[in-house]
Amino acid sequence: MIADLILAPHRSVRAFRPEPLPEGMLERVIAEAQRAPTDATGQMYSFIRITSATVRRRIAEISGDQSHVAAASEFLMVCADIHRLESVLGSRGRRAGSYPATGLHFATVDAALAAQRMIDAAEALGLGTVCIGGILNGIEELVGLLALPRGVLPLFGVCLGWPAETPHERPRVALSSVLHDDRYRGQTGDEIEADVAAMAVITRSRDWVGVLAQYFAEGGTMEEREAGLRRVLERQGFAW
Amino acid sequence: MIADLILAPHRSVRAFRPEPLPEGMLERVIAEAQRAPTDATGQMYSFIRITSATVRRRIAEISGDQSHVAAASEFLMVCADIHRLESVLGSRGRRAGSYPATGLHFATVDAALAAQRMIDAAEALGLGTVCIGGILNGIEELVGLLALPRGVLPLFGVCLGWPAETPHERPRVALSSVLHDDRYRGQTGDEIEADVAAMAVITRSRDWVGVLAQYFAEGGTMEEREAGLRRVLERQGFAW
Repeated sequence: MIADLILAPHRSVRAFRPEPLPEGMLERVIAEAQRAPTDATGQMYSFIRITSATVRRRIAEISGDQSHVAAASEFLMVCADIHRLESVLGSRGRRAGSYPATGLHFATVDAALAAQRMIDAAEALGLGTVCIGGILNGIEELVGLLALPRGVLPLFGVCLGWPAETPHERPRVALSSVLHDDRYRGQTGDEIEADVAAMAVITRSRDWVGVLAQYFAEGGTMEEREAGLRRVLERQGFAW
Repeated sequence: MIADLILAPHRSVRAFRPEPLPEGMLERVIAEAQRAPTDATGQMYSFIRITSATVRRRIAEISGDQSHVAAASEFLMVCADIHRLESVLGSRGRRAGSYPATGLHFATVDAALAAQRMIDAAEALGLGTVCIGGILNGIEELVGLLALPRGVLPLFGVCLGWPAETPHERPRVALSSVLHDDRYRGQTGDEIEADVAAMAVITRSRDWVGVLAQYFAEGGTMEEREAGLRRVLERQGFAW
């Protein structure tokens, strides 16, 4: 184990106290998000802050009845965005090129970098956060609900608020499983067993592979999300 | 302007002192990366640490003769990775589903979240960092060079080391340009002009739109990268 963590500990918080964030705090963490690295000065992301209780409840439902999406002090939809920079080019009569795969690549990375810097800043202030990947379940509806133009893609949601719980930090696979020297090295059977054992506490059943299978095996959640995501990628200009 | 930034300031550092990182420091920042949120406990990323001077020089060339890629104390290739979790499923006889778009979506986000937490931790320790998007110029060659199996995609590189320069922090667009309330709001002409003016100092020519155009306009860098990236997405199992 590596001791001496450097940043505030991260655990996903799903129970929040009801009070709002102090005046200006949301803007402070968004300003931190903006300091993240960005490719080619493009800043290819937008945050949609959802204040409407109706829309919050609908996003909570879409995401698999995650009530914290409605209850958190703030909920932000993190979006990849190449629409804004294309508008800037258009203001000078420059036409944007055609690069759906490359645009998706860099805009998704830019948006996630900005979101994580926001999360690190929020946690440094004592706020709790949780990322909501379940928005993918209803991504087609979200594009309409949030009026997203072509070039903008919802990636995930983030709840922010004062924590009303302090969950344990959850386990991770071994550091050696994610760090390779010079060439990708597949895991040995023993290494897989060690990770499966380390991750067991993540679920009451102590069956991490069962959790993974619910999402990633044949018939799992990822396959269910595939068709809707493909339609949205097409509609928003990110398919090729 | 928002005062009181919370995290260590970020600026891309491209000149590094020659000494190595202290024993264990790379592992500490990778351990921080692992604490980032991850979708469905999947931890869908790998870092390839490049120690070979020959490979470093080649990646520096690929990326547009960026000598800091070779000179930095550490260089990591950040990769989206669904290969590892599919190996874990396979160890229990479970077949992975078919979800190329959804896998690309979540693995790219997971990897960028982890990388940004690593960057925030590294900067908190006083290290300098720079992300290298230029690796996309030679992404096909990289897949072979790093022996990446199907399910693994290079996203960007990160240089780490002790800074030998302290660049100014670079400007960003207005906070109101990246933060929307409830629905996406396109920018007015005045807002675009304000962002163009704020970003002017990013380049000696004071022509931010010209910089954007080099990358994003017709005939720009993003279009040049598109064909190679599409071939790699196909080969690595992320095309549909």
